[in-house]
Parts: sequence; C-alpha cells; structure tokens
Amino acid sequence: MPPAGKLQNSPEKQSNEIFQPSESESAAAISAAAADAEAAGLWTQIKAEARHDAEEEPALASYLYSTILSHSSLERSISFHLGNKLCSSTLLSTLLYDLFLNTFTSDPSLRNATVADLRAARVRDPACISFSQCLLNYKGFLAIQAHRVSHKLWTQSRKPLALALHSRVSDVFAVDIHPAAKIGRGILLDHATGVVIGETAVIGNNVSILHHVTLGGTGKACGDRHPKIGDGCLIGAGATILGNVKIGCGAKVGAGSVVLIDVPPRATAVGNPARLVGGKEKPRNDDEECPGESMDHTSFISEWSDYII
Amino acid sequence: MPPAGKLQNSPEKQSNEIFQPSESESAAAISAAAADAEAAGLWTQIKAEARHDAEEEPALASYLYSTILSHSSLERSISFHLGNKLCSSTLLSTLLYDLFLNTFTSDPSLRNATVADLRAARVRDPACISFSQCLLNYKGFLAIQAHRVSHKLWTQSRKPLALALHSRVSDVFAVDIHPAAKIGRGILLDHATGVVIGETAVIGNNVSILHHVTLGGTGKACGDRHPKIGDGCLIGAGATILGNVKIGCGAKVGAGSVVLIDVPPRATAVGNPARLVGGKEKPRNDDEECPGESMDHTSFISEWSDYII
Amino acid sequence: MPPAGKLQNSPEKQSNEIFQPSESESAAAISAAAADAEAAGLWTQIKAEARHDAEEEPALASYLYSTILSHSSLERSISFHLGNKLCSSTLLSTLLYDLFLNTFTSDPSLRNATVADLRAARVRDPACISFSQCLLNYKGFLAIQAHRVSHKLWTQSRKPLALALHSRVSDVFAVDIHPAAKIGRGILLDHATGVVIGETAVIGNNVSILHHVTLGGTGKACGDRHPKIGDGCLIGAGATILGNVKIGCGAKVGAGSVVLIDVPPRATAVGNPARLVGGKEKPRNDDEECPGESMDHTSFISEWSDYII
Amino acid sequence: MPPAGKLQNSPEKQSNEIFQPSESESAAAISAAAADAEAAGLWTQIKAEARHDAEEEPALASYLYSTILSHSSLERSISFHLGNKLCSSTLLSTLLYDLFLNTFTSDPSLRNATVADLRAARVRDPACISFSQCLLNYKGFLAIQAHRVSHKLWTQSRKPLALALHSRVSDVFAVDIHPAAKIGRGILLDHATGVVIGETAVIGNNVSILHHVTLGGTGKACGDRHPKIGDGCLIGAGATILGNVKIGCGAKVGAGSVVLIDVPPRATAVGNPARLVGGKEKPRNDDEECPGESMDHTSFISEWSDYII
Amino acid sequence: MPPAGKLQNSPEKQSNEIFQPSESESAAAISAAAADAEAAGLWTQIKAEARHDAEEEPALASYLYSTILSHSSLERSISFHLGNKLCSSTLLSTLLYDLFLNTFTSDPSLRNATVADLRAARVRDPACISFSQCLLNYKGFLAIQAHRVSHKLWTQSRKPLALALHSRVSDVFAVDIHPAAKIGRGILLDHATGVVIGETAVIGNNVSILHHVTLGGTGKACGDRHPKIGDGCLIGAGATILGNVKIGCGAKVGAGSVVLIDVPPRATAVGNPARLVGGKEKPRNDDEECPGESMDHTSFISEWSDYII
Amino acid sequence: MPPAGKLQNSPEKQSNEIFQPSESESAAAISAAAADAEAAGLWTQIKAEARHDAEEEPALASYLYSTILSHSSLERSISFHLGNKLCSSTLLSTLLYDLFLNTFTSDPSLRNATVADLRAARVRDPACISFSQCLLNYKGFLAIQAHRVSHKLWTQSRKPLALALHSRVSDVFAVDIHPAAKIGRGILLDHATGVVIGETAVIGNNVSILHHVTLGGTGKACGDRHPKIGDGCLIGAGATILGNVKIGCGAKVGAGSVVLIDVPPRATAVGNPARLVGGKEKPRNDDEECPGESMDHTSFISEWSDYII
Repeated sequence: MPPAGKLQNSPEKQSNEIFQPSESESAAAISAAAADAEAAGLWTQIKAEARHDAEEEPALASYLYSTILSHSSLERSISFHLGNKLCSSTLLSTLLYDLFLNTFTSDPSLRNATVADLRAARVRDPACISFSQCLLNYKGFLAIQAHRVSHKLWTQSRKPLALALHSRVSDVFAVDIHPAAKIGRGILLDHATGVVIGETAVIGNNVSILHHVTLGGTGKACGDRHPKIGDGCLIGAGATILGNVKIGCGAKVGAGSVVLIDVPPRATAVGNPARLVGGKEKPRNDDEECPGESMDHTSFISEWSDYII
Repeated sequence: MPPAGKLQNSPEKQSNEIFQPSESESAAAISAAAADAEAAGLWTQIKAEARHDAEEEPALASYLYSTILSHSSLERSISFHLGNKLCSSTLLSTLLYDLFLNTFTSDPSLRNATVADLRAARVRDPACISFSQCLLNYKGFLAIQAHRVSHKLWTQSRKPLALALHSRVSDVFAVDIHPAAKIGRGILLDHATGVVIGETAVIGNNVSILHHVTLGGTGKACGDRHPKIGDGCLIGAGATILGNVKIGCGAKVGAGSVVLIDVPPRATAVGNPARLVGGKEKPRNDDEECPGESMDHTSFISEWSDYII
Repeated sequence: MPPAGKLQNSPEKQSNEIFQPSESESAAAISAAAADAEAAGLWTQIKAEARHDAEEEPALASYLYSTILSHSSLERSISFHLGNKLCSSTLLSTLLYDLFLNTFTSDPSLRNATVADLRAARVRDPACISFSQCLLNYKGFLAIQAHRVSHKLWTQSRKPLALALHSRVSDVFAVDIHPAAKIGRGILLDHATGVVIGETAVIGNNVSILHHVTLGGTGKACGDRHPKIGDGCLIGAGATILGNVKIGCGAKVGAGSVVLIDVPPRATAVGNPARLVGGKEKPRNDDEECPGESMDHTSFISEWSDYII
Repeated sequence: MPPAGKLQNSPEKQSNEIFQPSESESAAAISAAAADAEAAGLWTQIKAEARHDAEEEPALASYLYSTILSHSSLERSISFHLGNKLCSSTLLSTLLYDLFLNTFTSDPSLRNATVADLRAARVRDPACISFSQCLLNYKGFLAIQAHRVSHKLWTQSRKPLALALHSRVSDVFAVDIHPAAKIGRGILLDHATGVVIGETAVIGNNVSILHHVTLGGTGKACGDRHPKIGDGCLIGAGATILGNVKIGCGAKVGAGSVVLIDVPPRATAVGNPARLVGGKEKPRNDDEECPGESMDHTSFISEWSDYII
Repeated sequence: MPPAGKLQNSPEKQSNEIFQPSESESAAAISAAAADAEAAGLWTQIKAEARHDAEEEPALASYLYSTILSHSSLERSISFHLGNKLCSSTLLSTLLYDLFLNTFTSDPSLRNATVADLRAARVRDPACISFSQCLLNYKGFLAIQAHRVSHKLWTQSRKPLALALHSRVSDVFAVDIHPAAKIGRGILLDHATGVVIGETAVIGNNVSILHHVTLGGTGKACGDRHPKIGDGCLIGAGATILGNVKIGCGAKVGAGSVVLIDVPPRATAVGNPARLVGGKEKPRNDDEECPGESMDHTSFISEWSDYII
Repeated sequence: MPPAGKLQNSPEKQSNEIFQPSESESAAAISAAAADAEAAGLWTQIKAEARHDAEEEPALASYLYSTILSHSSLERSISFHLGNKLCSSTLLSTLLYDLFLNTFTSDPSLRNATVADLRAARVRDPACISFSQCLLNYKGFLAIQAHRVSHKLWTQSRKPLALALHSRVSDVFAVDIHPAAKIGRGILLDHATGVVIGETAVIGNNVSILHHVTLGGTGKACGDRHPKIGDGCLIGAGATILGNVKIGCGAKVGAGSVVLIDVPPRATAVGNPARLVGGKEKPRNDDEECPGESMDHTSFISEWSDYII
C-alpha cells in the first residue's frame, strides 16, 4: 500500500487528487467489485475473531453478539456500535443508528475507507492484535468513521446535524474533528485522545496521527486557515501544527513539535519551535517513503538530543 | 467590548477589580435592566436559529425542541442541557437540573457571564456559525457554565457538591477546572479538551484559551500556587503555565509554550522553555490591546522559527 | 513512605523487584494482617467523611449512600462506583460490578495498592481535602484501579475482556493505559486527562504523573518498546517519553518535556528536546530522594528559563 | 374526616359541590393556612420516617435520600418521584419533573388533595405502615397524583400533553384514568392494577376503589357516558360499573359485581348482574355512613352466599 | 366497513377465510395500490395532527418530532416508537427498531392492518380525538402492532425471538397475546390492560375487545384449546372466555361474563355463568350486524338486571 | 411430586407444615445434596436450551448470553435478570443484583423453590416449550422469585427494603404480592398480570393461579385477614377470594368466581357468588387429587352452564 501520490502546491488541487481519482467507468466497476470482495472478506474475518473470543470469554459474549455477531454486514455493525456509543438522552440511539446506516449505505466509498482504516490499525499498531479489537475498542478508528458520516452530512448542507454529531464525538471520544475537514483513507489515529482537526484541514491517505495532535487555525479570520497533511505523513504525539501550512508527502513531525511553517516532503521536523533534522538545507530525503506506515518515531534521536547517557 | 482593566500587582486586588466593580446603586439597576434586555434579545435569536434548523432538519428537531425551543429562558435551556449531559446513574438529571436552575436564578451575574461567553465564541471563532451551535455543541462553553455553578457552590461552602460537579465535568468534557478558580466573563475555551485550571488560578475578562492548556500548580504546598491570567490574554493550544505567575493583560502565550515565570502585559511568550518574542528587553508592546479577542496565534512566526521554505 | 528501591538495569529484574518482593511466609502473614488493618482503618475514615458530607449536603446524600455508605467494604464501594461509571448500553453495570468485585476479592494485593494510591493523592495533592473526595471524584485514581483489574485479566490471558475494559476507561476518563502495562503502588495520576501508557511500559512505586503525559512506543515493531519509570519519579504535565528508555529512580521530567533517551536517577530533564538541568555531566543528584512524593515541579526554574522579570 | 356531602341528583351540580365548595374569603385564608400547616406537619413526619428507615437500612438510604430526604417540600418530592417513574427515552425526567412541579406549585388544592390521599391510605389500609411507604410505593396513590396534574392540564386545554401523561401512567402503573375524569380527595386506589376510569366519570370525596375496577362507558356515542360515584363509596375488587349511572353516597359495590344501573345511597350491590343486598325494596340503609372509610368488604356475606361450611 | 364474513363451522376454515382471501393477481395489484394510497393519506393526516400539537404545546414538541415528525413513513414511526417503548437494558432499542422495521417492510399486509386498527380506534372510541393520539398513546393499539410482528416471527419459526418480544409486551403494556394467536384487522383493544389471548386463539376482523378480557385455554393438554372470535364481535370488559369455543360473528359478550361454551352469531351472552339474552331458544338475532363497530355495551340491561330504581 | 399434605385447621400450623417439614439431620443432608444435583442438572439443561437458541437466532444471542450463558449458576442468572428488570433510575441494577444474589446464596431453600417453580411451568403450561423460556419470559415466575427474596427480607425485619422491592414488582410485572405472604413451592402464576395476594395470605405447594386472581382482605382491621390456599389447588382467571377463608387442598375455584367463605378440600367453587359444583351437600370429592397440576379448568361445565348449543 504505497502512498497514493505526492503533496501538490495547491491544496485545492491536492485534495481533488487525493479524494477524486479519475477512473474509467469499467475500471470503476471492477474496483467496486474488488472493494466489495475485500470488505466481505474482512467482515468474515472479524466475525471469526469475535466468535472465537465469545467462546473463550462468556462474560464478553453478549457484547460481541450485540456489536458484531448479530449483524449481517460491517456497515450495520459499525452503525449499531456508533449509535450506542454516541447516543445521549436527547439524541437517541435509534436515530443515530438510522443516520449512520443510511449514510454508509448511500455511499460505498465510506465503507471502503473504513476497510482501509481497519487495515491501517492492524498493520501499523503492534498493540492491535485483531481487526475486531480495532472495530470495538479503538476510539480513534470510531471517531474517524463518525467523522466520515458527519462530513458527508456537511457536504449535503445538513450542517446542524453534522455539528451535533461532531459534538457527540468530541464529548465521548475527546476527538474533535470539524465536519468540514477532508480526510483520506488508511488513517490511523493512535490513542486519539485530544486530537483536534480544524475546519479547513486536509489529510491525505495513509497518514498516522498520534494523540493530542492539533491541526489548528491561526486566528479569527474565516477562509482556508488549517494545515494540509500530505500522503504518508507521520505526526507524533502532542505535535501542534497551526495555519494553512503544507506538510509534504512522507514528512515526519516529531512528538511535541510546534510547526507554524511548511515542512518539505520526506523531511523531519522536531522541536518547539520546530526545526528540520539535517537542517533546512539538507532535510531528510531518505528512503522512508511513507513514515505514516513505517511508524518510526525516534530514529532521528542521535541527530537531535543533546545528551547521551 | 474592550478589556475591563489591566492586571494588577496583587492578585487579590486584581480579582476584586475584575469580579466586583463598584457601582452606584442606580447605575447597577440600569445595568441590570440592560443585561436583562441583552439576554432576552440573545435568547430570542437563539430560538429563531433553532427554529430555522428544526424546520430544515426534521431529524434534529426533537433535539432542538427538548434543549432549546421548549424552554422559556436561556437559564432553563442551559440547566436542562447541562443536567442531561452531566447526569450519571448515581447523579440524576433531575437533581442536576434543579441545582443548575436554582443557582442561575439566584445570581443574575451568572447569566450575564453566560451571555458574554456566547458572544465571545460567536465573534472570535470563525467556525462558530450561530449562537445556538455554541449553546448546544461547544463543550468549552458548557464546561465554563457548569464551572460558574460549581464555583458559586464553593463560595457557599458546599464543597462536596461543587467537587462532585467538577468531577462530572472532567469526565464528560475532559475539562478540569477546580471549583475555587475565579474566572471572568467573555471567556472562550476553544475546543477545550484537556484544559486544566487549578484551585487558586484567576482568569480575567475576555480571555481566550485553547485546548490542552494547563494553569497548574508548583507542588504539594497549599496556598496561592496557580497562574493569574490578565484581561484579554490569548493562551495557545497546549501551553503549560505553572505556578503563581502573572500573565499580564493583553499578553499572548504561544502554542506549546512552557511558562514558569511572569509574562509582562502585551508581551508574547513562546517556546519550551518560553522566551519573549523581541527579547526580555523589548517584549512586544504593540497595538494589539486584546489578543484574547483578535485571536492572532501566529503573526510572530517570522521572529521565531528558524527555518523558511 | 520512602521509595521502595532504585531502578535496576534490567527492566525485567526491576519489575520483578517492584512487584514481587520476596518475603518469608510468616512475614507475609503479618504483612497481610497489617494491610487488612490499614484498609479497614481507611475505610472507616472514608465512611466517616461521607457521612459528614451527607449530613451537611442532603442533595448529595443519595450519591454518597449509593457509592460509599451502603457498602460493607472499600472493594465493594469501588466495584460499584467503577461499574456504574464504566458501563454502557452494551456492557452492563451488573456485569462490570461482578467482574470488579470478583477480581478485587481474588487478589488482596489490588486492594492494598488501592489504599496506597488513596494515601498518595491525599498527601501529595493540596487540592485533595479528603479520601472520599479522591475515591469518588479523581478520574486518575479510578482509571488506575480499573487498570489494575484489566491488568489482572491480561495476566490471566483474558485479553479481549481486558481490552474492552481498557477501551471503556479510555472513553470515560480519557486515560489510556494498556492492560499489559505494569504499574506499582502509591501512584498519583493528577488530573489524568490524556495520559497514555503503552503496552510494555513499567512504572515503579510512589510515582506521580501529571495529565497529558505519554509513555509511548517507538514504532511498529513488537517487543519491549515503552519507557520504564523508576520509583519515586515525578513526570510533569504534558511530558512525552518515547521508547524503551529508563527514567531513573527519583528523577524528574519537567512539564512539556520530550524525552527520547535515558534520564539518570535523581536527575531532572526539561525542555523539547529534553536536556538535563545541571548538564549531562552534573545532573542534579541532590537530596530530593522522591520527587514523586515531594511534588516540586518548578524549583529548577532559575537554572532553565532564559528571562527574568 | 366525615364524607364531604351527599350525592346530588345532578352530576353537574354534584361535581360542582364536591370540587368547588363556596367559602367566604377570610374563611378561605384560614383554611389555606390550616392546609399549609397540615401539609408541613405531614411532610415533617414523612421525612422522620424516611430518616429512620435510612438509618436502619443503608441499602435503601440512597433511594430514600433521592426521593424524600433531599427535597424541601412534599410537592418537590412527589414531582421528583413521578418524574423518574413516568419518564421514558422520549419523555425525559427533567421535562416531567418541571411539569409536575410547576403544576403543583400553581394550584395548592392539588397538594391538599395529595395530603388527604396520603391520610386515606394510612388510615384505611392495614398494610400501610407509614406515610413514606405510601408516597414511595403505592402505585394507586402515585397514579392519582399524576392524574391530578393531567386533569389540570386538560382543563387548561393542554390536551395532547395531558393524554401523553395519561398514557405513561397507564404503561407504568397499569392504571388508566382519563385526564378529563373528575376525582375528589381522600381517595384510596388500593393495589390499583387494572383500574380504568373513563372520560366523563366523576368520583366524590373519601372513596375507596380496589384494583381491576372499571368505571366505563356504554358505547361509541360521545357525551356524558360514565359513572358518577358519590362520596364515601367503597367499590370492591374487579367491580365493573358501566354507563352514566349514579352510585349513591355511602354505597358499596361488592367485588366482581357488574353494575349497569343506579345504586341508591348507602345500598350494597353485589353479583353479576348486581342485585341489592336486602332487595331493591329494602336496600341496606344502615349506620355505615362511609364504607369508603370503614372498608368493610364482606359483612353482607350471610345475606348473599348460597352455601355455608 | 361491514364485517368481512360470517363465522364458519370449522375454525380452520374460518381462519383461512379471514386471513387469506383469494384474489386474482390484478385485483391484488389494484388493492395493493389502494392500500398504499390509504396508508399515505393517513400518514399525512397524522403528521398534520402532530405538527399542530407541536406548535400548540412546545413541551411536547420534542416527543412529537422524535416519534412522528422526523420519520418518513408510518412503518418507521411505529418501529421507532415500539423500539423505544419495548426496549430494556438487555434488549436494546436499536435491535428492536431494526426488527420491527424489517418485518413491517417485508410484509405490507402488516402495515395495512395497522391502518385498519388506527381507523377502528378513531371511529369506535369517542375518547379518541385524533389518529396521532392512538398511535402514540393507545397501549392496546401498540400491543397489537407488536403482536403482528411477533406473530410473523412465529410463522417463520423464529420462536425464541417471538416469545422474547411477547414477554416485553406483557411487561410494558400488561397485554399478553401469545405470538401464535391469529388476529384479524380493524381490531380495537380498548384500554387493553390485562388482556390475555392464548396460543390457539383466533380473532376475526373488526372485533372490539375491552380490557381484562381473557381468551384462555382449558388445561394442560396441547392442541387447539382457545376461543375463536368471529368477525364483528364485541367482548366486554373483564369477560373470560375459556376453551375451544366459537363466538359467532356479530355476537356480544357482556362485561364480566364467563363463557365456556359456544355463543351463536349475533347473540348476546351475559353473566357468570353466561346465559343468552332472550334465552337459548331466542337469542338476539337482531339488526346489529357488527357490535364490534357499534360498541353498544349495555342496551340489553332491561332484559337482564333484576332491579330498577 | 404429590401434594405435600392437606390443609389443616390452624393456618399457623398449616404454614409451619408446609414450609418447615421436620427432617432428621442426615436426611436433610441427603436432601440438600439431591436438591443441589437437581438444580445443577436443570441449569445444565437451561444453558443447553439457550445455547441452541443463540445459535439459531443471532439477533437474540446477546440477550441469551447476558441473561443465561455468561453466568455460572441459576442463582446468578436469576439475580442478574431480576436486577435488570426491576431496577429504576433510583434503585440501581447493581444494588438489586447484589441483594438478590446475597439472598439466594444465603438460603438454598429459595433456589430449591425456584427449581420447583420452573418444573411446574414446564409441566403444566402447554405453551411453555423450554425451561429457559420460563426463566426469561414468564413474569409470573419472575414475580414469584422476587417475592421469595422480599419475603426473606421481611422475615429479617428489613421491611422498608422488602416493600420497595414489592413496589417494583407491582410496577414492572403488574403482580402485587405482599412481602409477608407465605408461598409454597411448585407454584405456577400463569400469565400473572393483575394477581394480588395480601399480607396474611398463605399458599401451599403445587398450586396454580391464573391472572387477575385476588387473594384479598376484608376491611381495615389488622390481623389475619387473607385467604389460605391448600396444596394442589387451581384458582381460575379473575377469581376473587376475600377474607381469612380456607380453600381446601385440591380444591378448584372457577374463573371469575367470587369466593367469600371456605371451600372444602377437592370441591369446585364457581360463579359470582360462588356455589359448589354438585352442591354443598355433595361437593366434588373426586379422584382429581391435585387440580393445581392437572390444570383442568372447565370439565364442570356440563353441571354449571345453563345453555347448550
């Protein structure tokens, strides 16, 4: 799963490329069938995992049946799970379930992105031991799926509903993604608590973002004011990226960094304020095409820390 | 809405000035009538917004009627909304509703501060498209209103109840404001997740604080040990301010900064450890009277970051 | 309550020492009886506090009776409280209550650690005015107790159940501790929101950790990849420690620090990237044996900050 | 507590007399003060009972505090209790609590009737051992109080709300009293399950009605079509009274009777179809002025049953 | 709406006729289109009623939007309403909603019967002032609709699920209809509390049944052992009909009657034990074709009661 | 399972005999072991039934696992099920679960009675197709089990708690059994809705009682005032038995009967007022030893009804 492309100069163009790859019609049909098959295969595996766990652990079987094993598809399972997690006394689970299911059903690309996100967590996070674990327990995964639905509502001009959903996700998961933000597929929000992603932010494909990361704005002016994250980036825990800056494809932002200006493709920015490892003249441009997938957070230590023990 | 005053040397005196401006009695009466009128006008607008949204989006109408349109006043609406958001199986919504409503009704200054907070969000946050959106969805706004009630309880020596409420706000909104902290009006807690404000902290009027900000203590000694934030300050995302330090009126603390000593009025502190933009000899003392309102997070970049692309 | 020992070279050995101190059988019996007596005494005090508060504040009495006063032991009270806080529509409170109670009952060392944690909060946090306040309201305390149970399940190879519990704690308290992480006793997670502790992390006894602290991994490789925190350490708010690094006994990590390499015992690391106060040649090795208990967050300021006002 | 008057020929007149006794203004003031004093005294007693029970039975203390001991008045306690019993996922407890409290507060006669009903249960039901037991546990008592509120709403032309409340009472208590039915004070609905009282029914004061009793209509024609029950009547379990018939003051209807025509004052009707004990020429006209209070269900046996053992 | 046919000798044949009228295919298509149109028209009217009530009564608007106005069809509204009313902590509303919606969607005859039942309540019950009132508040109506779904499940051999639903209806509405019972359309269960209908009971079209009615069995033998109620019957409150007896089309059973043997068509049975009004030689065979619709409960009084006042 | 004995003259004596059969110690031990074995066997069968149903019907599997399959014993399963069914917002499920489990565990005779009740339903009710169906769905069975616990509490002088439980059962199941009533084992409450059993009632073993049956009192005098039902009786639907009367062992009371005086052993009483089938001189004294088990409701018809068709 290589990064889907490189970050372009124009964020508009970039987001177009990321989200609307042109295809011939027949290719699209083939691709749709392949996506359906992939989703079906994954769903079969998830049910097998859940069935195994239900047999091993009767105390969890009721939970596994209600969330996974009683459902006929991945979309129904996620809609049920999100509906029950995000409901409140004033926003009933039945209403949310209906909303999620209708939205997932109406646009298969959402389901395909879900599949890519599940694979991302399974491959990249060594603590992720099964797909069902991610589906059930990963609040970053669940927050992203809820975001995909609220983003769809936003594009349909159903803003108040999108914002209500956004608010529930922020309350329940402590993950705050504005419904207007555009997010690619194959995304891992690891741990996820405290992630904030602003209204005009754009995130490419195959990106990994750790907890407490901010993709924030610069002030009270409207307009395009949030970061653009290229394909394959890795953003470390607690990193703060502010303003309409570009983080080039395959770039890495170290944990705790504060980034206010562009980071070139495949460069590594660290520190507060951030500087480029290797210097601005010779930023890393190494062989690591996709740190969002390779997930190497700390190999730059020797060039950066000022003490050795 | 200019900042209400400048930060004084003595925090006690300061908090007095901020929270208890002396007025002649007749002026107070006029002011009370004006505040009532402003609140009534705002409430009318909120209901109009909610009615519009209910007509456009039937799926949300039930929510909008239960939280806003069925209520006769802003206080009742907020009390209902907070009661339902903060309740648990052991702290029932009816109990909390009663508590909020009685407290708001007994002290009109709480309602007036609520009005100022609503205006702050609407004016300063470009993603805030209506007052009703803030009232319903902004956990920073809701956490502040719940804090005003728990602070009132604290001043009435109802500490266990104040702390129980504090705990619910920390669970539900991931916003942790000690009931004893003194907070002015016109406050924006943007995104809000992870904000921590300690027991002896004082925050002036018209302050904007981003998510993950800590106003923390210095150790295990009791006494006055938390920051004092002057009117009109802007505290960036993830900033950590520790100890009984003064952040002068109109000062700015950059995202991710760690501040352990005073910041002069209208100065900008950035970095970890923080330094003053322009240096300690020539800290910014520019024309930006109230960054808490102008919300410019990043104009100091050119003086600070060490690489340009 | 002095720190229980010094950090050893081998994390395996260290964890052995911390968690499995060898004792003769009779000493163990004496120690068990003493622990029971201490727990009973503490429980008596907690009930007295709750009874006092119930009398003073009728609005809270129902809550205090259901969570504390109706129970016959500390274990039952905590099991009830956690069961009701962590339940969801798909994981019922009765199931969780049963699980907590059975686990606490089956292993007295959990209860003893709970007692030590309660004492830690009461002694170290000046805002903690009673044991009952900690038991009821401190999400850091509650998250740790839930972790002790999920860790026990993990060691019994009941991984799916442990992970489901882990997920609920992350949702409800925004505290994310992997069930496999090994954690000592006398731990204070102050404020706690946003704490992330990875799978192979080890934390000694009498450690204090502030909110937003990350003990994270370094990438996608499996194996031992998270920090080892020695006895008596103090980790400041927002500190990020990544990789299989050792933070020596009695060391201090300043707020907002980013630490990627070992910190020697009783040294203080600050900044992003972290450096040692006093330099790597002369790291602090002062008289402060246990900053995790003395909780001095800022006395190093004069050696660190670059401006004075 | 003698019966408040005798059944009149005209049901309209009767209901006027029963519900709107004319009083001079000063007498009304005295009476209001006396009613307040009586209610206050009763409330004091209820709290004393609940406090005693809470001390004896810690497992119940939380319930007793939330329903009784945390409230400042009988009206608040009942409003809380009914709000929590009658709420559903689509009719929230806070809404119902507000509705009950506002209605009770706006019309003191409701509270006075509540007091009379509590006394009726305490005096007439040998299984009723305290006022608090009735307040908490008697679904007949609670259904009547909810009816008083829905009846008030009905008279204010808030019919849909009155009917929604009616429906909740029918679901929760299996007691079905049309909101338009006029019911006096000092009413005991003993056991109460299955009671059905139609739209144009009128019930006087000091009446006792057992479970499964029907005061039903005669067909699909609109208009006055339900029974009128005079003061002091006793209607036995499972009795069915249909049509616009008059049950005279002090009359008794035996268990299981089916009554389709008038029953004279102080007569006893038994059987299916009902006949008068003593015959229609010499119906009982004995000394028992108020069987609704004396509660003698079976003394007529010797005149009725056809076998002796 | 005349009764659909007369009771036949063979109950098997009868039920066939009632439930499976043969139609030519084209007639069926016309009939299906007409049924759709009727349902659409009724749904339009229900929404208009609910909208009117929501405008008049803001306190109820949230309820009306969530139950009626937010839905796109009668089936969705009923599925939502039943799902929320019948759910429990172990049978979630989302599961029930899904089950109801799928069943209603899969078999339009259920929806058509619902329409007939709504009309029956509106026409026959003078206390029924709107269709929306019946849809929202009539537990008899709701219990019948839930029965139609559980009966469908029963016929699909999904017996445990059918019985679980049956149990919830019995708990929530106190209406106990075995899933195997066959029930026609245009049914009014007035008040409904306490109705019990056994496994092999059959009820024709346009029948009205009052509360506390039992259609019960005769013992512990399996097989066909419950009553068969012909079209157009009226069964009065508290009537008990036991055994495989036939109540002929257009017959009437008086309130409180106990019927253990057949009742001829258009006869009236009253009393305990029941006898026929007019005698067994001359049972009523009058012009009242369909007492289930004319709802005359008491016109036989003069022939029955033994006293006149 | 023959009836345990005949009704005695003295109800005190009778109840002693029924509930406390004297046994030698060794016999008791044998009997206890046999009872344990029987319960274990039944529990194995219930789990097998539930497992089969869970496999056949995934939509119900979650319910079956949470209520049955996740539990280690019949007592735990029932305690969980009752705790979740009877809980309310003010009486939490965890509290009730604890109460049920502790009570069942403390007195094995309760569990043994439960086993006998399960067998009674399975054998006598032709609609009962499995033990698990009874355990999950039969409100009569569940109400009896809850009664056994509240009766135990009553005998321990925990009256307020017993009455609170009693009230919940009356709300949830519409079954109203006073906690003081003494009830034997092998009881079937068929359909159960509306059953009312008063404070001093006593019911022997192997009794079957249909819905709407009242065992009521005679007035407001305290003391022994409710019926005594001998072993093996069958009480038909809607029967009303009032006063301290004896229904002899093996007697039958017809549906809808009103009984105010004693019924001899093995006699059949029918009608309102009741008379004895065969006359008081020759009451049935036939071979039917235990109609409570043979469940023949209607074989007396030919002697009773006054018309034949």
